[in-house]
Amino acid sequence: MRIALDAMGGDAGPRPAIEGALLAAKLYNIHVLVVGKERHLQKYFSALNITDPRLEIVHADDVVKMTDSPTETIRRKQTSLAVATRLVKEGKADALVSAGNTGALIANTLLSWRTLPGIKKPCLAAFLPSLKAHTLLVDAGANVDCKAHQIVQFAMMGSVYARDVLKRPNPRVGLLCNGHEDNKGNEVTKEANKMLRQTHLNFEGNAEGGDIFSGDFDLIACDGFVGNVLLKTAEGCAAFVFKAIKQEAKKSIFQTFAGLLMIPTAKKLKKRTDYDEYGGAPLLGVNGIAIKAHGRSNKKAYMNALRVASECHELNLVDRLREELARLEEEIEPESPHNPPTTSLPEN
Amino acid sequence: MRIALDAMGGDAGPRPAIEGALLAAKLYNIHVLVVGKERHLQKYFSALNITDPRLEIVHADDVVKMTDSPTETIRRKQTSLAVATRLVKEGKADALVSAGNTGALIANTLLSWRTLPGIKKPCLAAFLPSLKAHTLLVDAGANVDCKAHQIVQFAMMGSVYARDVLKRPNPRVGLLCNGHEDNKGNEVTKEANKMLRQTHLNFEGNAEGGDIFSGDFDLIACDGFVGNVLLKTAEGCAAFVFKAIKQEAKKSIFQTFAGLLMIPTAKKLKKRTDYDEYGGAPLLGVNGIAIKAHGRSNKKAYMNALRVASECHELNLVDRLREELARLEEEIEPESPHNPPTTSLPEN
Repeated sequence: MRIALDAMGGDAGPRPAIEGALLAAKLYNIHVLVVGKERHLQKYFSALNITDPRLEIVHADDVVKMTDSPTETIRRKQTSLAVATRLVKEGKADALVSAGNTGALIANTLLSWRTLPGIKKPCLAAFLPSLKAHTLLVDAGANVDCKAHQIVQFAMMGSVYARDVLKRPNPRVGLLCNGHEDNKGNEVTKEANKMLRQTHLNFEGNAEGGDIFSGDFDLIACDGFVGNVLLKTAEGCAAFVFKAIKQEAKKSIFQTFAGLLMIPTAKKLKKRTDYDEYGGAPLLGVNGIAIKAHGRSNKKAYMNALRVASECHELNLVDRLREELARLEEEIEPESPHNPPTTSLPEN
Repeated sequence: MRIALDAMGGDAGPRPAIEGALLAAKLYNIHVLVVGKERHLQKYFSALNITDPRLEIVHADDVVKMTDSPTETIRRKQTSLAVATRLVKEGKADALVSAGNTGALIANTLLSWRTLPGIKKPCLAAFLPSLKAHTLLVDAGANVDCKAHQIVQFAMMGSVYARDVLKRPNPRVGLLCNGHEDNKGNEVTKEANKMLRQTHLNFEGNAEGGDIFSGDFDLIACDGFVGNVLLKTAEGCAAFVFKAIKQEAKKSIFQTFAGLLMIPTAKKLKKRTDYDEYGGAPLLGVNGIAIKAHGRSNKKAYMNALRVASECHELNLVDRLREELARLEEEIEPESPHNPPTTSLPEN
């Protein structure tokens, strides 16, 4: 098992990436190809006294910045992202992990690996905490302007991931909508609702924004524009509630004291909702395994992202997706012929 | 000042509506036409010993249920909603307040009052709490499938409301998007972004979901599908955080005790985020003043909804909107001629 790790992508530089790789090698026996500027990486290897033979540096001269335009990055062949992507393409690695520019990750893997048959656009599957288990959100922001057919594909790919990787038998699928009733929705979701009812997926109907936290669905499907809005709203709202509690508590010494007593609870809750526990968002629909780790990943988040990548490979996720896609194509009517599926790059 | 109050609309029946009307009459000297089944309402008037001449019952034989199809309700001329709407149309009342079926409120007012010149679809303006003042969300769910031109109109109408009713000078406008950068967005929002830059509105660029809580924008504009998802996500997330804190705290007696000490803070926060303080969501773009009160309105929420309705009338909100619409039409290119603005009913 060899995973290519774009070590230059995260906000905090290569250190947490290398530390996470070391943990993954020790705990899960994963061989990690640590991709980035060799001299730079070597410094960290020396400082951390790394001698584990399962960690190997692969040199890449260039680095993709968070602000770089995704389409512009695909022309640069020596970025750590491009080199890591190529390692998978050439069979030298089994999967890719990056905490860098999401659009660039999608653009590079799309161009190098292409998509699975029938897939026009891949999707990002994000995990959100709920009162029960986590809920998967597909697409969490890879694509805007999706057709109904594509949202159905996202639902299918999310189902395969939930079933095979997250071990949820018969995952319950929801379609993100402005109401639970079948007659609610915009033109695209109304069509997607009808299509989903034709499939073998365990479609439980329309879901509202708040259902992501109820645990009543294993996954909720939507286009990436709405998915991004949901994700950012949830992050912003949770941060708001905590800040507002602090603001209110500060108005009385007694309440401030009570608030301090609650810190262990807040910490436990933080752990429960933290991204470092689940390790990153898989990019589903490309012909290979790519895990997008959070930009602010710490070593634990990197370790978990590498673990998830290795699990996806061991479980033959790409083959499973290919099988289910073929099945789906038989179940639902294909897209209108004047709009055939093609591989396209994300616009932003 | 006379406000028509659909007293049959709320989840809890006419009692909180009547109590709220009594408060509004006493505190703000508002004359309230309480619309609903006379015998039914008279019982509450007797029970509450109401003799205030500013409260007047107007009989309506029929009631719109929350589950009724909006388009079906417009054929029923004797519902409390239809009668209240007609009172405004005929000049017997200055504004309308209802806590009932939102789609039916939109459909009834649209058909009876029509829209303001140039407006195809009205929007609902919802208030969300932020770390500073509340943020206005337009459209919060009245319309799905909006064109760029319509989202710009929502932004303009929200600006007028924020400026004149909420007293925010030069309201800061955000456009809900999947990223702050101008190149982010779907086809519709990219076009709306360009249009907004041509207007006199204080457009501060794209906003992300979380920005609704930052207080950096006075209002955020979007189509009603995304607006509904944002609203429901925020409600669901806040409820989730509180429940999860409770769940965690229950795991230790000490933490449960600390949690109990925090109750006053939680109550203050609840008050700060409660809908009963701001009184309801104005429906902007119809040719009249309609305030949608929350389905779960208590007497205070009704009182505030009636106060807001009377303020909108006193401030000539409809005239102000008409003026700004004319100005907007000069600033931005009109919609393509093969798709002229027409009055249409919401589909669901």
